[in-house]
Amino acid sequence: MQPVNLAAKLAQFTTHWDPHVIADYNDNEVMVVKFQGEFPFHLHEDTDDFFFVLEGEMVMDLEDQSHEVKQGELFIVPKGVTHRPRAADECKVLLIEPKGVPNTGDPATAAAKPRI
Amino acid sequence: MQPVNLAAKLAQFTTHWDPHVIADYNDNEVMVVKFQGEFPFHLHEDTDDFFFVLEGEMVMDLEDQSHEVKQGELFIVPKGVTHRPRAADECKVLLIEPKGVPNTGDPATAAAKPRI
Repeated sequence: MQPVNLAAKLAQFTTHWDPHVIADYNDNEVMVVKFQGEFPFHLHEDTDDFFFVLEGEMVMDLEDQSHEVKQGELFIVPKGVTHRPRAADECKVLLIEPKGVPNTGDPATAAAKPRI
Repeated sequence: MQPVNLAAKLAQFTTHWDPHVIADYNDNEVMVVKFQGEFPFHLHEDTDDFFFVLEGEMVMDLEDQSHEVKQGELFIVPKGVTHRPRAADECKVLLIEPKGVPNTGDPATAAAKPRI
C-alpha cells in the first residue's frame, strides 16, 4: 500500500498503445498508456471502457460521432459500443479494464500489459 | 456518451466529504469529491477503495502508517483495511466505488452521492 505517482510510471516507457498496469482495483487493472496515432476500431462485449486524459488530448471515434477528450476529462465507452481512440500528438491516459480484457477486443492482437 | 469534465463537475458544489456521481463504469460509480478536515476511520469488507488526487494533497491514515497522496497520485485501499482520508487544505479527488457502497462503511452515516 503506497501512493502511485502516475507521471513517474509514465516516465518508465516511451511506447504508444502499450498499457502498463500500475495498480489493481477489485477485479480491474488500473493502467497508464500513451496514445499517438490511431488505434483500430473495436468493442468489448462484456465491459465498459474507462479513459481519463492525464495530459494532452485525444479523440474518441464512435460509429456515428466523434468526441474530443481533453486533459482532465473522462470518457466511458459502454460495453458493446464500437470505438477507436486516436491522438494527433502524444496523449497520456489513465485506463481501467477488468483483468484479462484484451485492449483490442481480440486476444490475438492484444497488448501484453506489463506491470510496472 | 459525452466527455465529462471533472473541473466543471467539481465547480457545481462546495461541500466537503460529499461525493457526487459523474459517471458509471460497469457496476461502479465514478465520483468527484472535495476533502477538507478528517473523515472517520472506516473499512469496506467487500471492496477496494480507489482515490486519485486531482488537485491538492491528502493524507491516507491506516492503522499503523500514514501516506501523503499528492496531485497526480493514486491510492488504492484494499478491502478490509481500516483507513481515514484527511486533508489540511481542500483536496479534490476522483473516487470509484461499487454501486451501493456506503462511503463511511455504514449505511446509517453514508453520504447521499447525488448525480451531477
